[in-house]
Amino acid sequence: MAEMIPHWLTKQALLAPQKIAIETETGESITFLQLEKQSKHFAKKLATLDIGEGSHVGILSANEIPMIIAIHALSYLGAVTVLLNTRLTEEELTYQIKDAKVSMIMTSQDYKSDVKKIGFHIPVKSFSMIRQLSEKQVKLRSEINLNANFSIIYTSGTTGLPKGVIHTYGNHWASAIGSALNLGLNANEKWLAMLPIFHVSGLSVFMKSVIYGMPVLLFNKFDAKKVNQAIIERGVTIVSVVTVMLQRMIEELGDSQYPETFRCMLLGGGPAPKTLLVEAKNNQIPVFQTYGMTETASQIVTLSPHEALRKIGSAGKPLFTAQLKINNPDVKGVGEIYVKGPMVTKGYFNNESATAALFDENWLVTGDLGYVDHEGFLYVMDRRSDLIISGGENIYPAEVEAVLVGMNHIKEVGVVGVDDAVWGKVPIAFVVKSSPSITAKEIMDYAKEKLATYKVPKQIYFVKQLPRNASNKLMRKELLKLM
Amino acid sequence: MAEMIPHWLTKQALLAPQKIAIETETGESITFLQLEKQSKHFAKKLATLDIGEGSHVGILSANEIPMIIAIHALSYLGAVTVLLNTRLTEEELTYQIKDAKVSMIMTSQDYKSDVKKIGFHIPVKSFSMIRQLSEKQVKLRSEINLNANFSIIYTSGTTGLPKGVIHTYGNHWASAIGSALNLGLNANEKWLAMLPIFHVSGLSVFMKSVIYGMPVLLFNKFDAKKVNQAIIERGVTIVSVVTVMLQRMIEELGDSQYPETFRCMLLGGGPAPKTLLVEAKNNQIPVFQTYGMTETASQIVTLSPHEALRKIGSAGKPLFTAQLKINNPDVKGVGEIYVKGPMVTKGYFNNESATAALFDENWLVTGDLGYVDHEGFLYVMDRRSDLIISGGENIYPAEVEAVLVGMNHIKEVGVVGVDDAVWGKVPIAFVVKSSPSITAKEIMDYAKEKLATYKVPKQIYFVKQLPRNASNKLMRKELLKLM
Repeated sequence: MAEMIPHWLTKQALLAPQKIAIETETGESITFLQLEKQSKHFAKKLATLDIGEGSHVGILSANEIPMIIAIHALSYLGAVTVLLNTRLTEEELTYQIKDAKVSMIMTSQDYKSDVKKIGFHIPVKSFSMIRQLSEKQVKLRSEINLNANFSIIYTSGTTGLPKGVIHTYGNHWASAIGSALNLGLNANEKWLAMLPIFHVSGLSVFMKSVIYGMPVLLFNKFDAKKVNQAIIERGVTIVSVVTVMLQRMIEELGDSQYPETFRCMLLGGGPAPKTLLVEAKNNQIPVFQTYGMTETASQIVTLSPHEALRKIGSAGKPLFTAQLKINNPDVKGVGEIYVKGPMVTKGYFNNESATAALFDENWLVTGDLGYVDHEGFLYVMDRRSDLIISGGENIYPAEVEAVLVGMNHIKEVGVVGVDDAVWGKVPIAFVVKSSPSITAKEIMDYAKEKLATYKVPKQIYFVKQLPRNASNKLMRKELLKLM
Repeated sequence: MAEMIPHWLTKQALLAPQKIAIETETGESITFLQLEKQSKHFAKKLATLDIGEGSHVGILSANEIPMIIAIHALSYLGAVTVLLNTRLTEEELTYQIKDAKVSMIMTSQDYKSDVKKIGFHIPVKSFSMIRQLSEKQVKLRSEINLNANFSIIYTSGTTGLPKGVIHTYGNHWASAIGSALNLGLNANEKWLAMLPIFHVSGLSVFMKSVIYGMPVLLFNKFDAKKVNQAIIERGVTIVSVVTVMLQRMIEELGDSQYPETFRCMLLGGGPAPKTLLVEAKNNQIPVFQTYGMTETASQIVTLSPHEALRKIGSAGKPLFTAQLKINNPDVKGVGEIYVKGPMVTKGYFNNESATAALFDENWLVTGDLGYVDHEGFLYVMDRRSDLIISGGENIYPAEVEAVLVGMNHIKEVGVVGVDDAVWGKVPIAFVVKSSPSITAKEIMDYAKEKLATYKVPKQIYFVKQLPRNASNKLMRKELLKLM
């Protein structure tokens, strides 16, 4: 059934025409009325290139205002945005463009040459080239069908071929509403966006912007010092971060403090080391852990403001319209995390078998392991595929990592299982030092003190950095290549 | 299509178990967890009376916590609440009970005898009688289908037979979300509810309560002094009022002031005299006019906080998911107000012809006249049925009333048209004096100064009070009986 609401950008331009929609690090800004007008003009220019209802258009862009205009323009035409990760190799890019049946690619200036290289013959246009086109008088969407497709984003899966996650308007809508019901919505809200917009964590901030009528402070890329400065000086109330960013921000912050109006550091991108969370707490930084994935249009489980300090280490409770269960829990209550709700994707584009495997009845099978405590709080343990079974015991790499990263002179740790004739699998650790003095023996001794013997890594490898994907998630399978 | 979300009360009991859901004037209170548990127990007791999926159960009750428990209990059973106005006559009550196919009536202690009188043979049970029953082990709803029926409320129509407006869960959901996006949602929110819960304006506060996780301060009835005191002393941030209440509250407040944390006086129930709005502004009272009706599950157009002072007299802009148009406007832009959105009813229960007449394509035909200014703000003029056409000129009674009520020594005014051999219709006025000294001639002279000749009432009648319906709306047709 079509569920129609007014086009969200048109609506916000009516409700708050003069309010800032986006401001950038360098001082550019655009109001909701300007954003609407420019997006509509851009749509009419795109129409001359035969982009319309159902077209799939790739966007390969830095975090910049023209990218947001392009996304809204496609929506005014009933076309679908395919967001392309700018860190992809030519081969990966070619695969996604073909798989998503993209008929044209739009780029910001920086990435035009990247696309030219790939030797895949579809039109490639920069935003500025499109702005120079004349306009075709087409009827633009005045309403949104919440069941229609809005965007496709490929999962940065660590194994297998990437899959294009479809997000309907309703998925983004449910995500924004769920977050507002959890975090509240203040009159002065301003969200700092620095995660790549080609990830759903970055994109979702701009969906919230048009739905809430909220200004976004847009950063092209992460810089701990500049981000801290912006939080302190520019009225930021909420920022989305991943663990590595939070670490650097806390280091960079030193003895300075964020102002009281800064009320939420929304932390996603996988389980965070408890030591980091405690450090944040000691610095009075309001960190709220979240759990989510591309398939859930960003967060689906989040700690709420009044629980954040009491439940350190938990990802919180499912958002208002979401539900959570642990499938087939073991004696300790640990099992695979299943979720459902209106923010959950209807599936992967053009991939029925992967879509079928994604659901168990109406529940989304996340592939992550976790448990729920007696009060209903979720604790995420690890990717199910990363679980190490050693002599019949379950070892969660994230648990071992979280312990080791709490040791002095250690910056980052990655743990993975290797084959073992006796135990089946045993854990080994890859360590990035923060000071040269530390030795493998010291680390082993520390681990033996803190962990059951079977969880203690059998080998320590020192490395310069850990393999992370474009979402900054640790790719544990890649660790094996560093042995 | 079924759109499922978790049962909202169960969900809120999980998210904020220890938070106060409702507190009363006299100091009683109940947490979300207690509200959930008591509602579930009550549901299981109701199940022994054969109440279940699709049952229609009437509730005739004062504003009290057991009424809210009963409403949630019916929802856990998949039954529909039919809210009965306690001010109805026996005849009206009998009509509504039959029309809504009510199979049982629940009452608070005060109203039991009222129902006994009506001589209509269906079971009548007080809340306390039901609490004494044993429980039947039935499966309670854990999810809500947003397209299912939640409540039926009869419109207090000034003409014709009352009609039962169906509200789905989705209507109430859309209303609560639309309001949150307009007003924002602060961590300390507390809504004072004193409008009768049998009206949608009263009921909707309790829907917001479970959806937002927000405490409600519940008053059994309006008392200007007690309400002002509660706003000043009990952390109230928002209150819903109608014009007459606002007038009395301002009078009673005198030189006192509301605290800054009190951020919204949501004013509904028809166009308000501009003099009152200006008086509120001068007293720094944050009044936001709203426009809505039972058919829109309360407000559908509302002034937003940042526009309230600049746009006095306007009802604001349609809520985020709502749309508004003026049908068939005259040269001045005035025409009938049409609205649509997910908070709009799907129709009247068991009344296809009235439902068909309610819609023009997908738009709800409100029966109200108004215009939209160049910035998109709605100004509500009058009920279309109250419009006086005099010698081809349109006279809006509300406009004439608003002018006269601005005169000293006048408390309230009602204007209505009477037949006239020359002009077709002419306006006459019914005046409630606030001081005995004022004369009809003085009023006429004042009116001639302020209004075009054809708008000046041809007769002034002094009356003790104006006829108002249970929603405090002026019933202009009834004025004629006072001649």
